[in-house]
Amino acid sequence: MPKGVPVSVPDDGLTTRQRRNAPVLGVHTGDGKGKSTAAFGMAMRAWNAGLNVAVFQFVKSAKWRVGEEAALTALGDVHEATGAGGPVSWFKMGSGWSWLRANSADADDHAAAAREGWAEIARRLQAQEHDFYVLDEFTYPLDWGWLDVSEVVHTLRERPGRQHVIVTGRRAPQELIDAADLVTEMVKVKHPMDAGRKGQKGIEW
Amino acid sequence: MPKGVPVSVPDDGLTTRQRRNAPVLGVHTGDGKGKSTAAFGMAMRAWNAGLNVAVFQFVKSAKWRVGEEAALTALGDVHEATGAGGPVSWFKMGSGWSWLRANSADADDHAAAAREGWAEIARRLQAQEHDFYVLDEFTYPLDWGWLDVSEVVHTLRERPGRQHVIVTGRRAPQELIDAADLVTEMVKVKHPMDAGRKGQKGIEW
Repeated sequence: MPKGVPVSVPDDGLTTRQRRNAPVLGVHTGDGKGKSTAAFGMAMRAWNAGLNVAVFQFVKSAKWRVGEEAALTALGDVHEATGAGGPVSWFKMGSGWSWLRANSADADDHAAAAREGWAEIARRLQAQEHDFYVLDEFTYPLDWGWLDVSEVVHTLRERPGRQHVIVTGRRAPQELIDAADLVTEMVKVKHPMDAGRKGQKGIEW
Repeated sequence: MPKGVPVSVPDDGLTTRQRRNAPVLGVHTGDGKGKSTAAFGMAMRAWNAGLNVAVFQFVKSAKWRVGEEAALTALGDVHEATGAGGPVSWFKMGSGWSWLRANSADADDHAAAAREGWAEIARRLQAQEHDFYVLDEFTYPLDWGWLDVSEVVHTLRERPGRQHVIVTGRRAPQELIDAADLVTEMVKVKHPMDAGRKGQKGIEW
């Protein structure tokens, strides 16, 4: 199949231009590596296209994603300094979410933090504040029952305008997969930790 | 499994530190999206760790990878201007490979270009010129028989020092998978083109 040529054209009443410009809801799931990394790689591409990029991290890890955050934030700085690319915002769940700090009674309640975080994203989607959203490891609060999957999927489906959203994490709920336009499963074939290796800077974070 | 804790420790005579610092040979294969994108996301991480990053593109597409190239090159510029992160080099096969231009009789011979490109990479590996290599869509010249898989795998296995190499593309040869430390298969679950959509800027390139 030649690149860029669709296999079939659906009877959806859209012009090619409308279809081409349809915002993408993507899901990177599976047990293999590369789910978040590929989302951040897409964010680079979105940055270059001048899109307003926002990353929302939903699971706190020891190292967060310091490499990706530093690189994407540096690209946001390039945008501010030179106008190249687009702006980049980076938000962390929990203590990293500034709008939760004010509400510190909930600070240690991860489920409540996830709900408040999602509410903020839903608000931003409604206000069309960004063009390209990475909801990093967002499947976990869905899988753990912290968020209502149907409400989340409905909000994502009905988001206004032309906002791309990429969701990453294992065990993506079927309802989310059904709603998505682009779903890739990252399957682990082999991992260095299987051979007793530990993570290392520049590779794992 | 807690993050960062290996399942088992192999009897390989290495200290934990040696094992932790072992250079990674990674392969991103499969028919799904995200193979190259995840490699470029890893390159961001490597950049942040101050590693010398080099990308080698083996298949020319209409759009190349303009977004990733612009973003990673911008990060390389940030390194030159501020010292943050590491240097970034980006090389394209064929007309983009400056050492082939001088040898223009072969310019249209893709197989010869792939062989010369690989010879250049092998030379750089031997000289330890970079710390983190992305061999983008390098599986194709292997799959097409343009390169000797055994020779390539031997060179990658025996590369000196601490050089990470990530190879992307469909149909990775088994011999390469056997030699790799980290192998992820990207499996297509759903793709926008299945619904008659075309690629769009900021998403596909």
